[in-house]
Amino acid sequence: MPVAKLYHVPLSPFCRKVRLSLAEKKIDCELIEERYWEMGADFLRRNPAAKVPVLKLDDLVLSESAAICEYLEEAFPEPSLMPRSAEARYEVRRLVGWFDDKFHNEVTSKLLYERVNKKIIGKGFPDSGNVKSGARAIKYHLDYMAWLLEHRRWLAGDVMTLADFAAAAHLSSLDYISDVDWNRSDVVKDWYAKIKSRPAFRSILADQIPGFRPPAHYADLDF
Amino acid sequence: MPVAKLYHVPLSPFCRKVRLSLAEKKIDCELIEERYWEMGADFLRRNPAAKVPVLKLDDLVLSESAAICEYLEEAFPEPSLMPRSAEARYEVRRLVGWFDDKFHNEVTSKLLYERVNKKIIGKGFPDSGNVKSGARAIKYHLDYMAWLLEHRRWLAGDVMTLADFAAAAHLSSLDYISDVDWNRSDVVKDWYAKIKSRPAFRSILADQIPGFRPPAHYADLDF
Ligand SMILES: N[C@@H](CCC(=O)N[C@@H](CS)C(=O)NCC(=O)O)C(=O)O
Ligand SMILES: N[C@@H](CCC(=O)N[C@@H](CS)C(=O)NCC(=O)O)C(=O)O
Repeated sequence: MPVAKLYHVPLSPFCRKVRLSLAEKKIDCELIEERYWEMGADFLRRNPAAKVPVLKLDDLVLSESAAICEYLEEAFPEPSLMPRSAEARYEVRRLVGWFDDKFHNEVTSKLLYERVNKKIIGKGFPDSGNVKSGARAIKYHLDYMAWLLEHRRWLAGDVMTLADFAAAAHLSSLDYISDVDWNRSDVVKDWYAKIKSRPAFRSILADQIPGFRPPAHYADLDF
Repeated sequence: MPVAKLYHVPLSPFCRKVRLSLAEKKIDCELIEERYWEMGADFLRRNPAAKVPVLKLDDLVLSESAAICEYLEEAFPEPSLMPRSAEARYEVRRLVGWFDDKFHNEVTSKLLYERVNKKIIGKGFPDSGNVKSGARAIKYHLDYMAWLLEHRRWLAGDVMTLADFAAAAHLSSLDYISDVDWNRSDVVKDWYAKIKSRPAFRSILADQIPGFRPPAHYADLDF
């Protein structure tokens, strides 16, 4: 197993997706918090894109969460987080794109970034128009997940994949700030209970962000 | 070969990346312009994310450009647009993410969407602050490309890959509106001349958007 260090911020959904992949593949990883908005020279040397996550694996320095997760899948194939057939793999990647592009723009950036990141970075108060629009959009996204999960055990099909990790990464960060209504859909709640109880999820449930206290149900497996 | 239809808009970099992959793999494809902002019912049925590109391949309906390109690579492996080793594949995907996330947010959305999409969709005039910020950011991105191309024949290494198509998709759309300064870097210009002269690029160079005339050099292989 490689020596792994992840430069991250605890509530970043992109970082959480990588943390889940690493943990599921049992790659021990040191977590190093990166104050990316300070644009330190070391940080920019590690990733000229100036974003987290950045993963150091022995001498490799990796950025872009989708590229990192595909690399982990190819270099450490067991346990697998991707199905075999080209069509099933397509569906996983479509859903990763759905969450990391569409859900991120419509929900995560409107709720989490307004309520948490702005405060941490010192960029003022949440914009209430954005918060309202994020609160509206998450309902539609939960309904879409429910529609998928009525036909499938996991989001992309019969096995747990990167698509579940992408979705759970966003939802867990939003759950930390009480922005997920788990009563909206039983199938979505059951799906989250299943993924939340995996050992890979433990480190995420233990996160504590100074100044922001998670609700009691955040780390509770019977929420 | 499958019967292929691509629902697209001509200047969308995500659509152009898929068009380039299809053409390079010699998959004939009917192009159908999609007025996605009208949110037609058929369109939403094809892709609940309400985005282009959407690719119909026989009975499959595919969305999310990265997922589509990976699918094409797996289902039609020749000619290959991905290298073999996990590390080299990582680098391709990192750069695709660089262009489709970072370059898109910092440049394409600030220049192309302000100057073209707003007018087509009827959302008013370009925001000059955005245009200025995009014009500043593209310089930095061209310099980053130059830095890569000083060490490599193609953006991700020694062979042409999806990373080159992602980059060329954004730059060609910006070139259509004269927003690329090709004099900034000789290596970038040489790279673009190489990719522009491929048969796969022809359909892109033939695009005509009513109300927007491309500069004379747009379709010129000796620009
Ligand atoms: N496409 C990137 C997105 C990563 C990203 O946007 N990370 C945020 C934190 S959640 C960040 O570092 N933002 C800083 C910036 O964009 O300058 C990935 O998938 O890794
Ligand atoms: N992640 C998507 C992004 C596609 C995208 O943003 N397409 C734009 C046109 S360039 C679009 O359809 N926008 C409509 C919308 O976002 O509602 C992909 O890679 O296919």
